[in-house]
Order: sequence, then structure tokens, then C-alpha cells
Amino acid sequence: MQTVRLMARIVSAGTAVGKKETEGPLGACFDLRDTDDKFGMQTWERAESEMQRLAFNTALAKAKLRDTDVGALFAGDLLNQCVGSAYGLLDFDIPYFGLYGACSTSAEGLLLASAMVTHGMFARCAAVASSHYCAAERQYRTPLEYGAQRAPTAQWTVTGAGAFLVERAKENESCVRIVRGLPGRVLDAGINDANNMGAAMAPAAKDTLVRFFEDTKTRPNDYDLIVTGDLGFEGGSILAILMEDAGYPIADRYTDCGQLIYDRVGQDVHCGGSGCGCSAVVLGAHLLPRLERGELGRMLFLATGAMMSPDSIKQGQNIPAIAHLLEIECYKGGR
Amino acid sequence: MQTVRLMARIVSAGTAVGKKETEGPLGACFDLRDTDDKFGMQTWERAESEMQRLAFNTALAKAKLRDTDVGALFAGDLLNQCVGSAYGLLDFDIPYFGLYGACSTSAEGLLLASAMVTHGMFARCAAVASSHYCAAERQYRTPLEYGAQRAPTAQWTVTGAGAFLVERAKENESCVRIVRGLPGRVLDAGINDANNMGAAMAPAAKDTLVRFFEDTKTRPNDYDLIVTGDLGFEGGSILAILMEDAGYPIADRYTDCGQLIYDRVGQDVHCGGSGCGCSAVVLGAHLLPRLERGELGRMLFLATGAMMSPDSIKQGQNIPAIAHLLEIECYKGGR
Repeated sequence: MQTVRLMARIVSAGTAVGKKETEGPLGACFDLRDTDDKFGMQTWERAESEMQRLAFNTALAKAKLRDTDVGALFAGDLLNQCVGSAYGLLDFDIPYFGLYGACSTSAEGLLLASAMVTHGMFARCAAVASSHYCAAERQYRTPLEYGAQRAPTAQWTVTGAGAFLVERAKENESCVRIVRGLPGRVLDAGINDANNMGAAMAPAAKDTLVRFFEDTKTRPNDYDLIVTGDLGFEGGSILAILMEDAGYPIADRYTDCGQLIYDRVGQDVHCGGSGCGCSAVVLGAHLLPRLERGELGRMLFLATGAMMSPDSIKQGQNIPAIAHLLEIECYKGGR
Repeated sequence: MQTVRLMARIVSAGTAVGKKETEGPLGACFDLRDTDDKFGMQTWERAESEMQRLAFNTALAKAKLRDTDVGALFAGDLLNQCVGSAYGLLDFDIPYFGLYGACSTSAEGLLLASAMVTHGMFARCAAVASSHYCAAERQYRTPLEYGAQRAPTAQWTVTGAGAFLVERAKENESCVRIVRGLPGRVLDAGINDANNMGAAMAPAAKDTLVRFFEDTKTRPNDYDLIVTGDLGFEGGSILAILMEDAGYPIADRYTDCGQLIYDRVGQDVHCGGSGCGCSAVVLGAHLLPRLERGELGRMLFLATGAMMSPDSIKQGQNIPAIAHLLEIECYKGGR
């Protein structure tokens, strides 16, 4: 049994996104939207930090809290040495746990933050994650100015940051709350094509999902929605097949944040969105509001990450991947 | 009050180091020592992963445990995208939380692992951290082949990995245990010289230490030793002065892992050791055994990290830093 019980109310979420995300199907849902992806900064990297700062400030403002009301921050991003988070959250006077989970960071941070508040280590914690298309392209692939052609299985790194505040849920309190979590294991499924992250990450998502169903003795149809972070269209299709094979068919209630955030055809994004920011902003701006409105009762949220670096790929290594899971429910007091 | 109570017994530690560390004053203490820093691998990066694997396996072997006995791993390193940990721990079938705390990772991981076992989220957790001189030089500064001259304030990245197993300490059980922890805050002290990390990190260490003394109403002389992770000689001197100014003089009981690991003059290491591996291997191979032998009764261990990237320095940003603190004691049952 590796699944842990949690009791964490999601107090508020803040999201900040760039131009392409604003133009996508969820555009109207995000809190802050920038038209040139720079957020007033001179570099893409600083723009990513600024998105984190803005997203976290928005989450604080929605909850009518100040930074000193938060016991600890769990944050990460895709930039080398996670500087998006280190610089972005520098203004805040809060103990800081830096994370690196690639695109799984949103769920990793929420899982750890939820564990802390569940057990009273801190009264209130925050989780923040971000990514930036232009910064990621030049770090992981080629600078945009080169005009490289993208592979059919490539995904589009989301320019966005999401921040979440959690505190211990009181018994019988009506709220959206995280009730179980299952950390992922790092798996190597033998994929080494850096233009096909979905295929590399799908087996990790399957591993976590199957372990969760076995641990909890639940089935896919116990949940209104099962959503992954950024498998996109390719990886999402693979996951549906893998789960069917494993005896836990999910296709009728499955989607992926990377499939939701862009208009696949109209926005020319190939296999959909990706990046730490993808699952963070879709969770904050789209999925949590659906839970709050009662459109969803209970959801499994898995953020998936590919743990390679450009250097490890050049050195001929495969792409290890991970998926962290959270069970999130809309609890109606006294039910 | 940001200091948290912990109750985590350190079950075992494993350390693996390279040639220069073997030749240093603590050389005989380390579990595994390699003579060419490659650990049988073809690249420095893979050698770093191999050190993590070996260190963790050693910690498991000392405790007569298998990987499936460990509930969760907290691991990190200095390589881009933390691939030292992701690949190094791939063989183990254990839920994995990737961390990025720069050189503060050993304490960050131990703090989170201790929190988990203290509150029974997992029965047993592990923390692993590593660095490799050759991999770090080519990533952060220049490839060794260039033969660049080192600045007088430069430090030498330790080639080493340390792994720790923790479980909940039973009441009245004689053991070495982690009893309090204080996560650091990211601070910018205005330093932007990437060849003087000690100066950038010392103010973060001071911030954490002063908050800890204020939180706990203790004084430096309540502890037999106060030890930082990798401030080295320059940063260590600065910290002693900062603490004197703050009204908490520590000089008579203060040292730094980066000062202990090399012979400063004989090994030509300028300002001492640094890197995630520095505090991890000195804690595992030197400090914990001193606690076990009863030479030290109670110690404050702070691992310090500089949270910049080569890109953020090129973009003109300062070096933000962080320091996570652990109070570790040798508890004699029934005392």
C-alpha cells in the first residue's frame, strides 16, 4: 500500500498564461493573460518567474491572505536549476522546498503540500509550477529563431504558471479537497525519442493508475473524470490502450490537460500541450472550478513528467518518466 | 514559528566518493571509493548516477533492507533536470520525489523524509544527494579540458553521493535522530559573482540559524556543533561574522563540511568543497558516526544552496540562496 490518505482543502488557485493559451478553448478561464508572453520582462526566463509571482499573488489575493500566512512553498519548473521558481518566488518571505519533477511538478507539489497540512506540520502550504514555451524550446530543443520544423508527435510547451493554496480540511466542511495521493515511480519504458514525450510518459501514468486501483480497490468508474497532465494526443491514446490491456478501461472518462488547452487543428500544436504549466493551469482554471460547481464529484488527477535532460539524450540514454496521482473530490458537508 | 518537530531515527547512511575525496582528511571514512571518478561508466554524468545507486544500495545493505522496504525516495543533484538522481535510482522500485535545492538538497531531502516518517505517511523513507566535480565544471563553468584558472574564492565540487534511511524513532529508543527541522527561505543578498558561492550563501545560513534560535529559544552553546554544508572557508568566515553581529556567536563550535573534506593547502582546493555531495558524504561518513559514538550529543546541520543557473547569471541576475536546517541528536534511551 503506497497510496496515502490526505485531507487537504484547496483554498484557492491562481493562473497566469501567455498568448496562445489565451487564444485556446480555455482562454477565458485563466486569471491573468499576457499578449506577448513576456509579462513586462526582458527575457523569457524572467517572464516565467514573473508568471509564478503573479499566479501565487493571485492565489493569495483570492484567499485574502498574505505571504506570511503560508507555512511553506513547494515549487518547481523546467528551467535548468529551476530558476523560474527560485527567482519568481524570491519576493515572498516563506520557507521554500524546491522540486524537480519535470512536468509532474504540479501534482508532486500538491501531494507534498497536502501531506504537510494534513498532518499539521504547517497550517497552510502552497504549490506552484510553471513553464514557458520560448524558454523551454531554446533550452531543450533549438532557439525559436532557427525555425526548426516540429515532429508530428511533438507537443507545445504551455506558457503558464499555476499556484495553489491548501490547508487542512475540517470534517464535514463543504469544499474541494485532496483525499488521497500516490507518488509515482521513475520508469524507463525504452523510449528515447525526445520528440515523443507522450509515448515515454504513458507507461508511467499506467503504472501509477494501476497501483492506485489495486491499493484502493476502486475501479475507473468510481471516478467522474481521470485526467493526465501532459500526455497529449499521442500519449493519451497510448495510455487508454495500456489501461484497457491492464483490465482498467478508462477511455469513456479520460482526458488530458494537454488535449484540453489548445485547439489541436486551429492552433497547429501537433500532439497538444505539455510542460509543468500545462497541468497546473488547466487544474487551476478549468478542473477545480468544475469540481466547485459540482459538475464533477470525484476526479483522479495525474501529472506526468519526463525526467531526461538534453545531455542524457545526447549520451544515448532512454527517457525515464514519472506520474504522481491525486484524488480530488467535491465534498458536500455532512454527506 | 516555522520550526517543525520531527521524530526520525537515522537507520543507516551510505557514501560513495571519488579520488580527491579519498585522498582528503576524511578519506578512510567513506564506504565506497573510486580511483578515477568514473565508477566504471563512460561519462561523468553516468558516473554520478552510479554513485547514487551505490550509495543507496550501501545504505540498504547496512540496514539489511531491500528497496521494497522503503516507502519513498527524496533525491536530487546539480545536473540539469536532476538526471543524476532520475537515472541513478531508476533500478529501485520506490515512489520518488525529485528535489532541486542546489547544494541544500541533502538537508531538504532529510527534512521531508523525516516529516513523512514522523507522521506515519510512510514507514521508512530515504534521502539521496550527489554531485560530481567534472560534470559540474562543464555544466556550470568550463569543461576541464579548457584548463581555466580558478578564482581564489572558488570552491571544489565534491565528487560523491550520500544516501540516508530514516524511520520513525520510538520513544526512549537509543538512536541518532532528527528532532527538529527548519526549511530555508530563498534570499537574495545582492551577490552576483558565480566564483564566490560562499558569500552568496552565508546570509541564507544566517537567516535560517537566527530564525531557528528565535523559534526554539535556544542559543548556540546549547549545541555541541553547528555545521554548514558547503560555505567553505570564505562563506564560513562570513557566516561567523554575521552570527556574531546578530547576537548569536557560533565561532567556537562552528565548522563546514566543505572545510572538512579536503586538505586546503595540500589539495589546492582554494576555498574548500561544495556541491550537493559535500554535505551528504560528510554527514553520512563523518558527522553521524561522531554522533553514534557519543562524541557529539546534539548538532545543528545546515545545508546551503545557491539557486542560480549559468543562464540567470549571464542575464545579470543575482545569486539567490537557501539553507535548510536539521537538529540531530544522539539520544540515549531513557535519558
